[in-house]
Amino acid sequence: MSTKLSNDTFIPLKSNLLDKSTSKYEALYGHIKEAIFNGRLKTNDKLPSSRYLSKLLGISRNSILTAYELLLSEGFIESRQGSGTFVADAVDLKPLLGSGTNIRFTSSSIHVSKIGQRVNATDLLSPVKAVPLERKESVFLPAQPAMDCFPYKEWQSAVTKSLRNPSAFSEQPVMGVCLLREQIQEFLLITRGVRCHADDIMITSGSQQALSIVLNLLVSDGDNVLLEDIGFKGIDAVLSSLGAVQMTLTVDEQGICFDKLSEVCQQAKTLVLTPSRSFPLGHTLSLQRRLSILEWAYETQGWVIEDDYDSEFIFSGHSIASLQGLDSGGRVIYTGTYSRTMFPGIRLGYIVLPPVLVPLFNKFKRIVDGGISAQQQVAMGLFMQSGAYSRHLRRMRKLYKKRKAILDPLMQQMLPMLSLIPSEGGMHSVYHFQGGQDDVAIAREANQYGLGVRPLSSYQRNDVTKHASYSGLIIGYAGTTEEHIQKGVIKLRHIIDDFCKKS
Amino acid sequence: MSTKLSNDTFIPLKSNLLDKSTSKYEALYGHIKEAIFNGRLKTNDKLPSSRYLSKLLGISRNSILTAYELLLSEGFIESRQGSGTFVADAVDLKPLLGSGTNIRFTSSSIHVSKIGQRVNATDLLSPVKAVPLERKESVFLPAQPAMDCFPYKEWQSAVTKSLRNPSAFSEQPVMGVCLLREQIQEFLLITRGVRCHADDIMITSGSQQALSIVLNLLVSDGDNVLLEDIGFKGIDAVLSSLGAVQMTLTVDEQGICFDKLSEVCQQAKTLVLTPSRSFPLGHTLSLQRRLSILEWAYETQGWVIEDDYDSEFIFSGHSIASLQGLDSGGRVIYTGTYSRTMFPGIRLGYIVLPPVLVPLFNKFKRIVDGGISAQQQVAMGLFMQSGAYSRHLRRMRKLYKKRKAILDPLMQQMLPMLSLIPSEGGMHSVYHFQGGQDDVAIAREANQYGLGVRPLSSYQRNDVTKHASYSGLIIGYAGTTEEHIQKGVIKLRHIIDDFCKKS
Repeated sequence: MSTKLSNDTFIPLKSNLLDKSTSKYEALYGHIKEAIFNGRLKTNDKLPSSRYLSKLLGISRNSILTAYELLLSEGFIESRQGSGTFVADAVDLKPLLGSGTNIRFTSSSIHVSKIGQRVNATDLLSPVKAVPLERKESVFLPAQPAMDCFPYKEWQSAVTKSLRNPSAFSEQPVMGVCLLREQIQEFLLITRGVRCHADDIMITSGSQQALSIVLNLLVSDGDNVLLEDIGFKGIDAVLSSLGAVQMTLTVDEQGICFDKLSEVCQQAKTLVLTPSRSFPLGHTLSLQRRLSILEWAYETQGWVIEDDYDSEFIFSGHSIASLQGLDSGGRVIYTGTYSRTMFPGIRLGYIVLPPVLVPLFNKFKRIVDGGISAQQQVAMGLFMQSGAYSRHLRRMRKLYKKRKAILDPLMQQMLPMLSLIPSEGGMHSVYHFQGGQDDVAIAREANQYGLGVRPLSSYQRNDVTKHASYSGLIIGYAGTTEEHIQKGVIKLRHIIDDFCKKS
Repeated sequence: MSTKLSNDTFIPLKSNLLDKSTSKYEALYGHIKEAIFNGRLKTNDKLPSSRYLSKLLGISRNSILTAYELLLSEGFIESRQGSGTFVADAVDLKPLLGSGTNIRFTSSSIHVSKIGQRVNATDLLSPVKAVPLERKESVFLPAQPAMDCFPYKEWQSAVTKSLRNPSAFSEQPVMGVCLLREQIQEFLLITRGVRCHADDIMITSGSQQALSIVLNLLVSDGDNVLLEDIGFKGIDAVLSSLGAVQMTLTVDEQGICFDKLSEVCQQAKTLVLTPSRSFPLGHTLSLQRRLSILEWAYETQGWVIEDDYDSEFIFSGHSIASLQGLDSGGRVIYTGTYSRTMFPGIRLGYIVLPPVLVPLFNKFKRIVDGGISAQQQVAMGLFMQSGAYSRHLRRMRKLYKKRKAILDPLMQQMLPMLSLIPSEGGMHSVYHFQGGQDDVAIAREANQYGLGVRPLSSYQRNDVTKHASYSGLIIGYAGTTEEHIQKGVIKLRHIIDDFCKKS
């Protein structure tokens, strides 16, 4: 390599060497590789001697020798006995440089799997998509717990204690840490009448993973799945990715209108529902229909997936027992979550399985992720074991009841065009527009002011059979103080007034 | 209900009422429901008055009224004006009781999805299955970090700090907590030459979830996938669940024998490999083959999945840069894990994506789990930011190098029938039996004594073309003290001697 070429090639590097975050040898190594890539250094070009380069760049010969050694070991350069160091003979990078850069952002060249294609085509999570939140802080965001009253001290103490527990560090059963599963078993038996063994419980990353795993193992491409005609869109996204066909049933005051003899019910083998408080409307499934669903499951050997997403907050003192507890035939799969009872960032949920499904689910969990953070599971287990969880739930039940008791009458007084859908608990109230107003447009407007309300219609599953009563607003009250509720309702009143004048 | 029937039905409950963990009303509620289920109480049976029952059971009338109220709200009993409380008319539980109990454990009635059927048929994770560990404490378990030297204090301080960070509690991007993704971006650039933006990084539950997500989105039922003919069986399990076809390529001292012009390479669009240190053999992929692989990817618009599972522990001072860093065409997907560098229970890994794939992966992550524990991600981000992670890695590199320097010569001296496959780093050494001994039988024997060695042959992908050199043992040294290494090798010598005498 001529002195000129050497100087031209290496002098620009000098300024980079001032950067303290990268070591000298790494900077030089990167620089030479880059020069080979962009063609400034070509096959058989001779590299300057370490002595020369050391003087030129003002860095130690050691750094230069280290960089050369690394490039040698990677095959970019080679040392030829007696004559020096050269850009390696075999390195033909031309094809890389040519086609590579052109392809980079051509999305037409993207070959993905069938699942990938379905996911690409899925219109995900439409409530959020229909009305994006303009601000992080949203007054009426549903499913937002009261973080102002969260027992941080007790949680911190559980976490600290978990760090002294070897289970938090070592490999744990893929189904989950035993302590936590035992606590869940006991908790669900007492509070929800769920009958199971701790071995039948799988810990998941939130209820989304719970539902995703269950549906992946039970529903194939083209299968019919029965659903409430208004509900949690996270389920729809999973079903779309699987290529399943959704068959929706109306929801009335007694929950999902399930008739085991109906044609639609006879065509499916899987039912997903929210029996305790239908989401988002908050209706409780009647005993009659519960029995009809179980009979259907036994007769068709179908599966019932009970999504028990917020039964912890039923204000009447005791909640309706789970559908799982009624099931003597092992056809109900029960899912629950801590996102609402603890905090959204916890990403912790669980599945209660019929024993016969446990081996399959265990195997599949090994495939999908091999288990989740042991430390957090241990902390949650300790938090439950100490009684802190039950105490926390009792306090939140009281608090949410109080907040609902402020919101509902105020709404009735300030916004008579919205009528409340009665419900005994939960973290949000649902109001419907009697005039069938455009709830999406109203919610969009409101969310520009940080209200965080959700349009009811965006939760419905059948755009085709659009239900008039599904125009409305979902208003979360759990995570909001009395003062904010009052200000928020007044703001909402103004927004709706302005909206009605305009249209 | 006659007094006799009442007494017969309710007196057995008295002993349960002594249990302090359940409230009185819950015990009574459960008891009546049970009696309805098992047919002791039938439709139209009259329940005793609360006054009578209160006296009979010695509990407050209030408890009895609460239990009745709950059963009323669930529809099991009904109150008839003026005549009392009865088991509800509509309750016909017979079908439940009949078919239900019979079905419970009949596995033939289990209808699962195509994925479920494939998972059922999969022979999972055969190294573990072939040779189960008899004890929890295993001297030579591969991938077991040195927990005796883990910086617990510094980790605890990061976790404690994370609990003061609001991001640990609130909803976070499904791709992962920003702080951690920024730290990974910087870390991978400096240590692995990985070029990406923090937005292109997805945080996962360990590398198993990383590989599972990547393969789900890129590989369909029936697709051919190129693999090293010996490797990590967690990948095989995912591919089986997807119904993909494995096409294996031999591994030699220069890594996977990839020839882009070969027929087998032309039939596939996806390649999964371990370029830095082929797993488990520890060979480094040559530059020549790296370039051939990238050319293949550009020409066929195929995908290359680089599993960089333990490149943090390369002892020669600097590790070979990643294949991702060579790729200018956006065809390499890079995965990494903290299970080996931190601890197995952490279940934290990551994917580095070509920008063009980010939207699809983001959507899919929403479907599979909606993100993982925010608190643990924040803690890991803080641990890296403070410099504690780099310090820890430097110390472990030194320690593991020292431990390997004890194990390898000792093995050579004590067990000359095993020859070392040379490798520059990692957490385990691989030895092969020159005589092609039955490594599975030997490992099984050894693990009864808590050695935790793995038979090399159980990692190979093609039983058909069984490779003689794939009879051997994988011996982890990272998590074992000097003293245990010495005792373990002596024990292993005795076991193999005995085994050879017997056979």
